[in-house]
Amino acid sequence: MANPTLQQLAADLAAGRTTSRRLTDEALTRIDDPKGEGKRAFIKVWKAQALAAADASDALRKVGMVPSPLAGIPVSIKNLCDVAGETTLAGSKALDDAPPAKTDAPVVARLRAAGAVIVGSTNMSEFAFSGVGFNPHYGTPGNPADRTRVPGGSSAGAAVSVGDRMAVAALGTDTGGSVRIPAAVCGIVGFKPTARRVPIDGVVPLSTSLDSIGPLANSVECCAIVDAVFAAEPIHVPEAAPLAGLRFAIPKHFVMDDLDPIVAKAFERACKALAAKGVRVEEIDLPQLNELVTLGARGTFAAAEAYAWHQKLIARRGTDYDQLVYPRIMRGKEMGAADYIDLLYARADLQKRVSAITSNYDAVIMPTCAIVAPTLDEVSTPDGFTKKNILLLRNTTVGNFLDRCAISVPCHAAGELPVGFMLMGEAMADMRVLAMARSVAPVVKG
Amino acid sequence: MANPTLQQLAADLAAGRTTSRRLTDEALTRIDDPKGEGKRAFIKVWKAQALAAADASDALRKVGMVPSPLAGIPVSIKNLCDVAGETTLAGSKALDDAPPAKTDAPVVARLRAAGAVIVGSTNMSEFAFSGVGFNPHYGTPGNPADRTRVPGGSSAGAAVSVGDRMAVAALGTDTGGSVRIPAAVCGIVGFKPTARRVPIDGVVPLSTSLDSIGPLANSVECCAIVDAVFAAEPIHVPEAAPLAGLRFAIPKHFVMDDLDPIVAKAFERACKALAAKGVRVEEIDLPQLNELVTLGARGTFAAAEAYAWHQKLIARRGTDYDQLVYPRIMRGKEMGAADYIDLLYARADLQKRVSAITSNYDAVIMPTCAIVAPTLDEVSTPDGFTKKNILLLRNTTVGNFLDRCAISVPCHAAGELPVGFMLMGEAMADMRVLAMARSVAPVVKG
Repeated sequence: MANPTLQQLAADLAAGRTTSRRLTDEALTRIDDPKGEGKRAFIKVWKAQALAAADASDALRKVGMVPSPLAGIPVSIKNLCDVAGETTLAGSKALDDAPPAKTDAPVVARLRAAGAVIVGSTNMSEFAFSGVGFNPHYGTPGNPADRTRVPGGSSAGAAVSVGDRMAVAALGTDTGGSVRIPAAVCGIVGFKPTARRVPIDGVVPLSTSLDSIGPLANSVECCAIVDAVFAAEPIHVPEAAPLAGLRFAIPKHFVMDDLDPIVAKAFERACKALAAKGVRVEEIDLPQLNELVTLGARGTFAAAEAYAWHQKLIARRGTDYDQLVYPRIMRGKEMGAADYIDLLYARADLQKRVSAITSNYDAVIMPTCAIVAPTLDEVSTPDGFTKKNILLLRNTTVGNFLDRCAISVPCHAAGELPVGFMLMGEAMADMRVLAMARSVAPVVKG
Repeated sequence: MANPTLQQLAADLAAGRTTSRRLTDEALTRIDDPKGEGKRAFIKVWKAQALAAADASDALRKVGMVPSPLAGIPVSIKNLCDVAGETTLAGSKALDDAPPAKTDAPVVARLRAAGAVIVGSTNMSEFAFSGVGFNPHYGTPGNPADRTRVPGGSSAGAAVSVGDRMAVAALGTDTGGSVRIPAAVCGIVGFKPTARRVPIDGVVPLSTSLDSIGPLANSVECCAIVDAVFAAEPIHVPEAAPLAGLRFAIPKHFVMDDLDPIVAKAFERACKALAAKGVRVEEIDLPQLNELVTLGARGTFAAAEAYAWHQKLIARRGTDYDQLVYPRIMRGKEMGAADYIDLLYARADLQKRVSAITSNYDAVIMPTCAIVAPTLDEVSTPDGFTKKNILLLRNTTVGNFLDRCAISVPCHAAGELPVGFMLMGEAMADMRVLAMARSVAPVVKG
């Protein structure tokens, strides 16, 4: 049975069919369930604060004070957001002696101001630096579709919190796909906004050039609402776009290689279903995407920017780092300033050249991830981890490097392993992508 | 006798007392004068185009078409701006085989659209990378106040073109002081806008983090007009600000060390004259400025960003570079990406901390340069060059690193070597600085 969406719950709250207290109690009970994944999905649970916020929300609602559709709704935030009075751990042990944050990160403050009930902060790949969702310090939550599989990352606990109804929506961050990957492989919706729309202050950075903050939830509409809250924009769910006549482009290059047969089959079925609704799905040449590999040869934004942030912490606590993350950060030490500056220019140039082609279409589409969620076993060796990590991240990184917005919606059938269908829009076309995703989601659902 | 200002000439043109043809003829005649500095002040002179533009301007004026106060006014541009059909040399020999530019740089196009008559492109420190104004390839124009002295740089020819009436105003670029330094040591006005206001596209970059484009001219008002044209803002000369009650801060640290006695005396006299008009001049502690030295220890924006741009050209034509410029660029090769990223953060942090103090004042004031223009002899050795270059650049670099706007106005008496008085405002306080400079300039003039 599908999880209730934010809109359903907001309607129930409005009609008095449920209360924030009840929703919050249920969420906390699931988190506490020893048979569930709560212990591994959450690093911190703020029970007393969540219940107090729920009661306050119910009391305010009784006198007509409902600040947003999120009012009274249990949500989770990722463990790399500052929360006043709490030490921000970023899924690591190396920050456990850091001073508590003085203020909430703006995105957290905006959630609270919208009336959301924050139940806790979710587990993640250490410092958000992998797409697998494995965490050696706080455990790896099992994938809701198959507990022997990883949840994807880095917003691993975020996806599991929504998939297992421990939260109605989750705050994730997406530097190379960390919202969309776990959403795709856990079978929910994940939206990566154009980065500049949402402030990243008060959130431990991975790569300031690429970091973005977006929601994971059970519906496109819910993502639109939470995204508007993150961006401090008026809350507005775009009308579903008419499908007939839309033109979607599938790049023949880079993103369609080495697909798992399960992914290939689900994606093909989704494209056919869209075509049957009048969408023109065109395979296009986009060899420019192959440059993403060569551009990283002299170093990457993530490695260089992460190393710049981490160098002092590594000097002090480097041995406490996840040993799968540590070498990825250290690679940034070798990059030259001129290589970094070159990469900034190359990125801007590639953005222009790709947009000259893709802007002729309503959206670019592709499987969110080339593979389904790997089993814990498959990523238990450094080599296995690296191979799966690359395939999980490959398609989503395109949107970060090109500074785009993108959404992943499920396209698997009941009983199949989750597969994500990704719509990628031009920079700042966020509302358009959400409008199209509203129409696409029910059609591609297998 | 003081050079006529843009406003005087614009009034003469409007009243029919002169024509653009006559002004342009006079400017070109001075450039051609074998006894003058034209050959060293200009790298290219566009005689036919300038005369055609002047005639067109006169014809248009006759039917009432006067696009701006710059209409029909001879101006010069710096040799690193793209001009359609011309090879951009940037004061170097190493670019002499580069293809011609396809379009005018936006700032050049804006000058033309405003009706300015571009007489030629001016000589400069090679690639804009020094404050001395020495150029081994195209000669070094003599300082209008004393031909045995350098004109300051990098916009060397720009200052001489205005000082010697070969142009009424000049386009300069300012990465560490390259507009303000030559303006100060040649005895004219130079304005460095907040960088983001004027597009640097189509202009060979020195340091994209620090580059700005601004005017050199005979008056503050002229600078305000040309700046508005560069920024594509409505042309507006801010009203002169009332002096009484203004609070100016002189930082005790960094900028007041090692002043030439001529500079110290002129600056002190200027401060007294302002105090007599009711300005409160306060010496303030600003030890944060000393961090400018330590912050550069692991590499600078200029070196790293210049190296990124130059590395391919150096591989091909490095031996053709000015041997005083080449090693300064090559220093950028050694800088690490993390050091560069650290510097970006450190800059933002220093900007905040300094503004917390300086924003309590209407402006920060200081001598534009610590020294007067060195003699050609004094900068003829690498050691002498380096020492003078550092002292010429020191005070102006503050404004670039802190992302400020600043103006240099003359504060020497007739017969004295030129000395610049600098007003530095907060970021984006450009109109306020121009308004204050209008009142300050006549008072500090010795």
